[in-house]
Amino acid sequence: MNIKKPDTDLVDKLVYANRILYDQGVVDGLGHVSVRHDSEPGVFLLSCNRAPGLVTHADIVCYDYEGNAVSQTEERPYLERFIHSEIYRLRPDVMAVVHSHSPSVIPFGATGNRLRPIFHMAGFLGSGSAHFEIRDHGGNTDMLIRSNELGAALARSLGSCSCVLMRGHGSTVVGNSVEQVVYRAIYAEVNAKLQLHANGLGEINFLNEEEAGLAAATNDSQIARSWDLWKRRIGPINAG
Amino acid sequence: MNIKKPDTDLVDKLVYANRILYDQGVVDGLGHVSVRHDSEPGVFLLSCNRAPGLVTHADIVCYDYEGNAVSQTEERPYLERFIHSEIYRLRPDVMAVVHSHSPSVIPFGATGNRLRPIFHMAGFLGSGSAHFEIRDHGGNTDMLIRSNELGAALARSLGSCSCVLMRGHGSTVVGNSVEQVVYRAIYAEVNAKLQLHANGLGEINFLNEEEAGLAAATNDSQIARSWDLWKRRIGPINAG
Amino acid sequence: MNIKKPDTDLVDKLVYANRILYDQGVVDGLGHVSVRHDSEPGVFLLSCNRAPGLVTHADIVCYDYEGNAVSQTEERPYLERFIHSEIYRLRPDVMAVVHSHSPSVIPFGATGNRLRPIFHMAGFLGSGSAHFEIRDHGGNTDMLIRSNELGAALARSLGSCSCVLMRGHGSTVVGNSVEQVVYRAIYAEVNAKLQLHANGLGEINFLNEEEAGLAAATNDSQIARSWDLWKRRIGPINAG
Amino acid sequence: MNIKKPDTDLVDKLVYANRILYDQGVVDGLGHVSVRHDSEPGVFLLSCNRAPGLVTHADIVCYDYEGNAVSQTEERPYLERFIHSEIYRLRPDVMAVVHSHSPSVIPFGATGNRLRPIFHMAGFLGSGSAHFEIRDHGGNTDMLIRSNELGAALARSLGSCSCVLMRGHGSTVVGNSVEQVVYRAIYAEVNAKLQLHANGLGEINFLNEEEAGLAAATNDSQIARSWDLWKRRIGPINAG
Repeated sequence: MNIKKPDTDLVDKLVYANRILYDQGVVDGLGHVSVRHDSEPGVFLLSCNRAPGLVTHADIVCYDYEGNAVSQTEERPYLERFIHSEIYRLRPDVMAVVHSHSPSVIPFGATGNRLRPIFHMAGFLGSGSAHFEIRDHGGNTDMLIRSNELGAALARSLGSCSCVLMRGHGSTVVGNSVEQVVYRAIYAEVNAKLQLHANGLGEINFLNEEEAGLAAATNDSQIARSWDLWKRRIGPINAG
Repeated sequence: MNIKKPDTDLVDKLVYANRILYDQGVVDGLGHVSVRHDSEPGVFLLSCNRAPGLVTHADIVCYDYEGNAVSQTEERPYLERFIHSEIYRLRPDVMAVVHSHSPSVIPFGATGNRLRPIFHMAGFLGSGSAHFEIRDHGGNTDMLIRSNELGAALARSLGSCSCVLMRGHGSTVVGNSVEQVVYRAIYAEVNAKLQLHANGLGEINFLNEEEAGLAAATNDSQIARSWDLWKRRIGPINAG
Repeated sequence: MNIKKPDTDLVDKLVYANRILYDQGVVDGLGHVSVRHDSEPGVFLLSCNRAPGLVTHADIVCYDYEGNAVSQTEERPYLERFIHSEIYRLRPDVMAVVHSHSPSVIPFGATGNRLRPIFHMAGFLGSGSAHFEIRDHGGNTDMLIRSNELGAALARSLGSCSCVLMRGHGSTVVGNSVEQVVYRAIYAEVNAKLQLHANGLGEINFLNEEEAGLAAATNDSQIARSWDLWKRRIGPINAG
Repeated sequence: MNIKKPDTDLVDKLVYANRILYDQGVVDGLGHVSVRHDSEPGVFLLSCNRAPGLVTHADIVCYDYEGNAVSQTEERPYLERFIHSEIYRLRPDVMAVVHSHSPSVIPFGATGNRLRPIFHMAGFLGSGSAHFEIRDHGGNTDMLIRSNELGAALARSLGSCSCVLMRGHGSTVVGNSVEQVVYRAIYAEVNAKLQLHANGLGEINFLNEEEAGLAAATNDSQIARSWDLWKRRIGPINAG
């Protein structure tokens, strides 16, 4: 456990990410968000077993790819930290991960439908979300990603996508920064709600792959505007 | 009326349960939550006729299986306390009961559909909710469970399930603790909303019975995380 | 304009009714609620042209059946006060009236469907809502009830019902007290939302007429519980 | 950059418009509202690149029809200011413009359906919304109106309508004042939600063109009532 301390600003950002995801209705008592350590390879930051809306700086723990804590903690970890560890292992481009049960997304996973970008804000969905069926990898389970093996299977199902739907459970999105992954988690939920509503109106003319890619690139340059708003809604967080 | 006083912590928990169910949108001015007395067999704790969002410690009354108050009170009781008394009589495993008109659940009872677990959080639904048709037991009524007889019929319809839908009225869920029954009432509503939304997307691949059982067992070990959040949202309650 | 002053408690109740209907999502900037004067026949109390969420005691004006102000005021009246005046004229049993554009109700009026009681809380809907088509009475109009003639046509369409849907506009509910009409306006909206949600699940087994009548009678004895909650949410109102 | 300062009240109104549109759920971190300069032809007022919910008086910038800032600013402009500039150029009757991604409207643009007035509050929709397909003008793009050319194409698609749906993006509404355009943006969203809900109930009997026109004229005389409410919800804004 002789690792470098993560950057203070990064920890601060991760705490805000937890609070923002709760404030925006992406997570309730469950769900989690992580970020890679800024200077320790193979290490990521994640809260201990706490509701995201209550997370403070003291709750942030460093874990390695095996899901073991590598910073001082006496708190219980999240059962599903392997979602994070195995995606970081397989996808070096991924710097941050959100796992949630955000409500409008669940119906798509449960019926085998994909999320596709119905508007430019969800350009990151590209040609659609990936799908993960836990029965194919673990048979009948409690649905949770509670081992490195299931985490690795989930990471493979994600492939090069930015979002994977987990049947009977929720979804996981990835990004290249805390801000981007929070943005994506929020707009995956918004896009899902829009798809649900459009469903009864006729065939949906989704963004095609080129439009989605171009929109995603532009949106990335605009995330700060929304982040400012989301953070302002939370106000100061006691560092304790 | 020579009964032992219930444990102070249990009363406190029951008051929070009332407030939490209101804050989470499970109950409005109506609905109620009860818990078995910790040391008096055949006795349970329930608020007097008060909106759950306004319940304080002074409102909690002890009732026996006949629905009679066995602690000092001058307040009117809930008309439907027989929902609680008869379930406690028939189901010794049940330690806590919630009755509500939570909005997403009503359409299922009104159309004769079952709630089934669309995601792991609702594993407690197992192979589905039970159904109660009051006309089969009381003919044309005001729909309320206002007698021991109707309470007993409802308890029999519940059987060994954790949730029974009451046509034209609402639903009742049971649990082995205040925390568990509050959790179940909240996620029965969430699951119902997800089923409604998934309905238009295609066939729903529900959790099978083994998955549901395994998920329910895991969730029970995680309730404290959500309970902390729900309680924090309420803040301190004046004991008066 | 030599009329008796209305009872202070009645005015207070009407101010709360305005605020509650806004807080509960029944009205937005538009909509209104009235009550009969307690001691002047042919007179009712209604706010001047103010958003219900901002109404104070000073805004309450007395009007006669012609829609003329009979208490001192320099404020503009609501264009649609004739909804109230003509219902009071035709229905001596009606003591209070709410007109709103509550969102879940509009789709029923626009498609010619009735609201019917999907749960006991809406027993007052009896065998269903009435329907009003303004084109049958005024041809092409701005949809508003801006004359005694249109008000009388609406009152006749209401008949002996408790709720009339107004195509392309909204709805009006009546009751025998401020508390009852507020209760009915809130649960007409809730019932409409439930009917919308149940619509995709299969045939709805509504309360039959006898069940509806019995449920309505019981609910009337329980309104105080909800009224306490609704009022507490508003807090004190500056009498100014 | 030798232009006259805009009227202080107009700037104040525009700041409130930003905050109101956020408070009412029409915009989130994105979206914008503008108004013509009161004394400089060919100039309009629009915030710099800021989330509408955070806009203050200091953020308001003057732009010309080319989308160039003509008042002192060091802040980044909105990428899509050309939506505003080109509509002002083409439509001398338009005094204010709102662009948003309001959620219920998106499904209509994505499926090629029109918004039509389901109730009197949306009379301004007349015989329906216009439609804009960016692919017809720019091929595959990032979906944004980031040039005068695309802005001009959008303005032509709008034609003489008050609302244009932008496939895969959002919508734009126009009005003859800040208050009117805010009113229209709010009720375009409300009307869209009502249309979505009515969709499953049967054929919708929309306002016909004459009814819509008459209703729109009446509503215009009533906007102040809603504006008072919307503004009161925001409270005072620090002029800084």
